[in-house]
Amino acid sequence: MEARDPDFVASTLNMHLGGKIHVTSAFPLETRTQLSRAYTPGVAEVCRAILKDPALAFTHTIKSNSVAVVTDGTAVLGLGNIGPLAAEPVMAGKAMLFSEMASVDAFPICIDTTESDEIVRTVELIAPVFGAINLEDISAPRCFDIEERLDARLDIPVFHDDQHGTAVVVLAALINALRLTGRDWNGLRVVVVGAGAAGIACMRMLLAAGVHDIVGFDSTGCLHAGREDLASAKRQIAEATNPRGFKGDVAGALVGADVFIGVARSSLLRRSDLMLMAPDAILLALANPDPEIHPEDVAGTPVRVIGTGRSDYPNQVNNALAFPGIFRGALDAAATTINAKMKLAAARAIAACVSEVHLEAGIIVPDVLDRRVPAAVASAVADAARASGVTRFS
Amino acid sequence: MEARDPDFVASTLNMHLGGKIHVTSAFPLETRTQLSRAYTPGVAEVCRAILKDPALAFTHTIKSNSVAVVTDGTAVLGLGNIGPLAAEPVMAGKAMLFSEMASVDAFPICIDTTESDEIVRTVELIAPVFGAINLEDISAPRCFDIEERLDARLDIPVFHDDQHGTAVVVLAALINALRLTGRDWNGLRVVVVGAGAAGIACMRMLLAAGVHDIVGFDSTGCLHAGREDLASAKRQIAEATNPRGFKGDVAGALVGADVFIGVARSSLLRRSDLMLMAPDAILLALANPDPEIHPEDVAGTPVRVIGTGRSDYPNQVNNALAFPGIFRGALDAAATTINAKMKLAAARAIAACVSEVHLEAGIIVPDVLDRRVPAAVASAVADAARASGVTRFS
Repeated sequence: MEARDPDFVASTLNMHLGGKIHVTSAFPLETRTQLSRAYTPGVAEVCRAILKDPALAFTHTIKSNSVAVVTDGTAVLGLGNIGPLAAEPVMAGKAMLFSEMASVDAFPICIDTTESDEIVRTVELIAPVFGAINLEDISAPRCFDIEERLDARLDIPVFHDDQHGTAVVVLAALINALRLTGRDWNGLRVVVVGAGAAGIACMRMLLAAGVHDIVGFDSTGCLHAGREDLASAKRQIAEATNPRGFKGDVAGALVGADVFIGVARSSLLRRSDLMLMAPDAILLALANPDPEIHPEDVAGTPVRVIGTGRSDYPNQVNNALAFPGIFRGALDAAATTINAKMKLAAARAIAACVSEVHLEAGIIVPDVLDRRVPAAVASAVADAARASGVTRFS
Repeated sequence: MEARDPDFVASTLNMHLGGKIHVTSAFPLETRTQLSRAYTPGVAEVCRAILKDPALAFTHTIKSNSVAVVTDGTAVLGLGNIGPLAAEPVMAGKAMLFSEMASVDAFPICIDTTESDEIVRTVELIAPVFGAINLEDISAPRCFDIEERLDARLDIPVFHDDQHGTAVVVLAALINALRLTGRDWNGLRVVVVGAGAAGIACMRMLLAAGVHDIVGFDSTGCLHAGREDLASAKRQIAEATNPRGFKGDVAGALVGADVFIGVARSSLLRRSDLMLMAPDAILLALANPDPEIHPEDVAGTPVRVIGTGRSDYPNQVNNALAFPGIFRGALDAAATTINAKMKLAAARAIAACVSEVHLEAGIIVPDVLDRRVPAAVASAVADAARASGVTRFS
């Protein structure tokens, strides 16, 4: 873990005093008429109307615009299992981004259990006021099962951001990095370090994009069909990737590789590892908060493009580029799920926010604070939802 | 149910489009520095700090200022069991009042089960991000058990507003109505119609105030020690009240009564019933949204003071006078519970907001929109919490 500036730490803590989100009224409560409509007796009319036609909950309550940011605190940033109390700042940070970037009303739900059954049941029971569920920082492989079960049980979108948000921004970054380096998906050689939620989702998305020469690593080593210790999600990946049957270490896998994607909780890359890669190599060093290697350390290696997850370096390949617009689009289209077509549309929309004239090694993704991004993503995602027939009111 | 103005209904529905609360950022996210503190990498410092000292969750997360407004939708207004979807407008209305009156960040949690065990467990599991729990519109007698179990399990205040909020404002209204009519608690004869959450809590609070000549009614009839069909909460009340062993109907109980408190889901009073009451009688006709009798219909009866729950009549004896300030005070004092002394302090503070010079039959409680009320209640409740030693950091 890198040394931390005590002034930055102190001011960051101060900034969090009192929490960093607020729940506010959508309109003022200053007159008796306003009060009698927002509260008793008028509110009873709205209750009656929803009782008569439950679909009105999707238009006349916060369900129309709300997202639960749900975690159990088991896989928070690179910090690991820190529990629900300590996870709140990350969830509230996401709620801020939802609000600021996409006018989505998101609320942190930090669940005080790690039992999958209880997590699924709790989310199911509190779902009535939410228009979508953003699962967050739930450890693999539990996250796969929890997402799948919730998606089956609920009639609103369920989206595990660590999987799909990461995969979407990685795909967006790769679309532009390939454009910049004159490559296409055909014959691309990719190394993925990390086979948790993000790693599995990235590899699945690469497979869907037609990339098969992927060598994945978990904390035990290389993923290959001969491994006997793999749970279901990893086993599927091990069987669908690694066509050359590679069984060595990361350095070995990097020989001639075009792309490195790092999404392990923590791992390190040495300059000597990078020297083995193909010319104009692409590095997405996304471990958070500490990347696998820092951008200042890749000069003089074959690496031409490096992205990290951090706001203080160029090429911030961060879910924040994806999730506000994806949920905005899903809510706008009244989508009942977030499917593969919607995710692909999001990745393309993010990539397209960097125009040909601006594209360069330090600008393969747009700025996380660029307001055009969530708008473009939302529009593309809503269109894809409608085109694939997964909207509620169609 | 009274006839409803279609224009009022239509404009009330329109007002609810898109929901009536928003989740917003406490500070802007406009620069990379702000983003790197509110989100990654800075947020990791806050997570680490809370992991090291969990008490920081009470100061550096929304737990410092947040309230879950929890319902299962089983006893909403006078509408009854309408379920969690249709209950949202009431919970969001409360969240608006929390925000506007007391700067408390409240979020609706509408739970999709009526099983007490599941409700208790769900609230327990989502408690990490909340500084207090406001139970709302949960039917009796389940509400008593649910509140008791949650209060025992959680280290934050748990307050069933239909019970205690109602009892606090009823007590406040009675303090001033007795002042106005020159009575005291001694020898007061009270009739309470409704023995659900609100009725039981009002009778308990009257008993605590020294009033024993209470005749209560549930939907079956008069509460007396001879009733064989009473569950635990009602049985205790039946044994502690009704000292004259009255067993008749409401009209019979009203003969010579000083105070009528109506908190049944729906019930009606006739003018002929009111004619039987003592001179300068006090009527709190709190059925919601339709009171037991309308204020325009009591002229020419012994009734001198009438209050209802509605915003469109004088003397709105509504929980909105109590809950914003009670929770504000509990959060300010970092209280671990809301005890009887805090509730009594709240009732006195509400009553004291009507000064001697303003007190009249149409002004026994302050206006629900009077911003002085939550401030006065919060201060009194926080003082009472500190004086009774139930604060977290003492």
